Amino acid sequence: MKNIVILGSTGSIGQSSLDVISRFPERYRASYLVAHKNIDLLQQQIDMYNPKGVAVIDECAGSVLRKLTNGSIEILTGPDFMEELVQRDDIDIVISSLVGFAGLRPTIKAIEAGKTIALANKETLVVAGEMIMDLARKNNVSIVPVDSEHSAILQCLVGEDLTSVAKVILTASGGPFLNTSIETLKTVTVDEALNHPNWRMGNKITIDSATLMNKGLEVIEAHHLFGLPPDKIEVVIHPQSIIHSMVEFIDGSVKAQLGVPDMKIPIQYALTYPERSNSNFERVDFRKTGMMEFREPDPEQFPCLRLAIEALQKGGTMPTVLNAANEIAVQAFLNNEISFMQISGCIERVMSDHTTIMNPPLDVIEATDRETRKQTRSFIESID
Amino acid sequence: MKNIVILGSTGSIGQSSLDVISRFPERYRASYLVAHKNIDLLQQQIDMYNPKGVAVIDECAGSVLRKLTNGSIEILTGPDFMEELVQRDDIDIVISSLVGFAGLRPTIKAIEAGKTIALANKETLVVAGEMIMDLARKNNVSIVPVDSEHSAILQCLVGEDLTSVAKVILTASGGPFLNTSIETLKTVTVDEALNHPNWRMGNKITIDSATLMNKGLEVIEAHHLFGLPPDKIEVVIHPQSIIHSMVEFIDGSVKAQLGVPDMKIPIQYALTYPERSNSNFERVDFRKTGMMEFREPDPEQFPCLRLAIEALQKGGTMPTVLNAANEIAVQAFLNNEISFMQISGCIERVMSDHTTIMNPPLDVIEATDRETRKQTRSFIESID
Repeated sequence: MKNIVILGSTGSIGQSSLDVISRFPERYRASYLVAHKNIDLLQQQIDMYNPKGVAVIDECAGSVLRKLTNGSIEILTGPDFMEELVQRDDIDIVISSLVGFAGLRPTIKAIEAGKTIALANKETLVVAGEMIMDLARKNNVSIVPVDSEHSAILQCLVGEDLTSVAKVILTASGGPFLNTSIETLKTVTVDEALNHPNWRMGNKITIDSATLMNKGLEVIEAHHLFGLPPDKIEVVIHPQSIIHSMVEFIDGSVKAQLGVPDMKIPIQYALTYPERSNSNFERVDFRKTGMMEFREPDPEQFPCLRLAIEALQKGGTMPTVLNAANEIAVQAFLNNEISFMQISGCIERVMSDHTTIMNPPLDVIEATDRETRKQTRSFIESID
Repeated sequence: MKNIVILGSTGSIGQSSLDVISRFPERYRASYLVAHKNIDLLQQQIDMYNPKGVAVIDECAGSVLRKLTNGSIEILTGPDFMEELVQRDDIDIVISSLVGFAGLRPTIKAIEAGKTIALANKETLVVAGEMIMDLARKNNVSIVPVDSEHSAILQCLVGEDLTSVAKVILTASGGPFLNTSIETLKTVTVDEALNHPNWRMGNKITIDSATLMNKGLEVIEAHHLFGLPPDKIEVVIHPQSIIHSMVEFIDGSVKAQLGVPDMKIPIQYALTYPERSNSNFERVDFRKTGMMEFREPDPEQFPCLRLAIEALQKGGTMPTVLNAANEIAVQAFLNNEISFMQISGCIERVMSDHTTIMNPPLDVIEATDRETRKQTRSFIESID
């Protein structure tokens, strides 16, 4: 029996994770659930999945939940509880699915405590990939990706030698604006940007999918997870999202992992890896699939992808700047403060003002993150 | 250094095999070449690849070659030389790429002698799959498929547990007549049937691709190679031949192997398996690939596929009957004796006249093969 803590249980990945875990009651238990502030859903999850304890990041929401549950379950709140929680002896696996920079510290603590990491939080590897992978190696910890793209690559690499990889090919749906002209992109609305054709996800990642920043962050993640140089990571647009990613080997052979766009498949694989278990998730019926399309991403249409690759090539603190500027800019777009095309404009401006610090320790990464957020806010306010 | 004998060196697979082997002069040597009767090409191969010896199945052609080479190289001919040759101590790998039933006996002898088999001859597993796989297990011999479809499945299975396979999905290009109506199929010419859209192959297999018998034979092969029941083997039409086949796992995840339609890739993989080596074979550029289509094969349009699956389900000697009737019928079509749609008509008729013998020993398989060929010829003559 493996005991699991889900960091971000009320998010999209967290909800799917609980569903997957509940299908294997003899093998996995969702022992602890950590939510940001959605205590309504967290209460439902307590009733449905019976965890040992829960935690709420927002202290006010935590107090409310404490009153509502009236001592019937352990409820943690306060600034540092996650770092304590992930190190507990009664936890084997940490599903790291918080949105944004907040996922970094608890993931580090979990690796130091030797927990297996099922990693859905992109920012952890984007801002501190080298540190995290080093730490995982030192602590002999598995970091298993939950992202459908990196799960696909992991599945294609099973039984293969990493030295025989020629390149990895990350597929991108292209999001809702794949066929939208650059002129029209300047005036698209938040609702249009949130209308992703294939995947149901949280707002932040849905906007990142529309700008292709999501794919850019995945390029940086793939670099760290699989130890590949930037020029061995390619992005291809595949609007149907059936091929989740591919690996080309040195002999010219390519392997791909495919499936319906349902995060439960990579979540389950992250838990059972390197084995597989039965599921009744929907299957692809290739006799009815019809078409799969592929095309090259247009760098004019999707400047965020180019910015992410530039940040990876610069290295050091630059991916932290990219990520922080993006978080603030996306939030500003969601708040109707800036236009869709201004997201990349903000990021590019903030990146160009930054002097990269190489091999940054954690406190420098955190300071860069804080400083970049401030700068991006100032820049956005100066536009208004 | 691995010494290789190529059974069928002047055929399409044989020529590609020689090319692949010549790229690894420190690791592989094409020590012996066996041809049917194309001594012009065989002489060129002798000059180019410098084998220790060659053999010619056609005795007359063999005598001519003996005179031409004038003792400068060992030349074998005569009815049983192949069985002796494949057992020689200075051979490690047998590439079994003869066309038709002739590949069976030498492959059995090679397995008995403990040689690694790179198997391109379909009929070996179609007519004697259980016997061959048993023999391989007993002699601890690897049978590595060269067919692009079975190589694809093998590559998708590397590092995976066979018990986690839900089904395999063989892709079929659909051949030159994918979009041809049944009415028009009745009058297509030999030249039209030989005009395969994606692959350059010998005449027999090209016609088998046009009827989809080739895919039917591959279903039977997949059953034996991977120990899967018929209902776990699906066929999907994929006209672009970029996905060479797929495996669906019990968790709903699918893996596919892809590449340009070039047999050198699976040939090289069969030699280096389970490792991979560099190649400069053409790559798929997914940014320029455009489309991949999929559809269900139409059983009315392609009755040979249905007949092959029926033969597999009946088992015993029925696949031998299917194969022998098909070889004769295809030859008759190539000779303009019967029409394209009469190929399946002949096979169906001969199969319906056959009473299946279960668990046939080799002599029964051979007798069934001989008898079926006679019956099919008589039937064809009765049509004329």
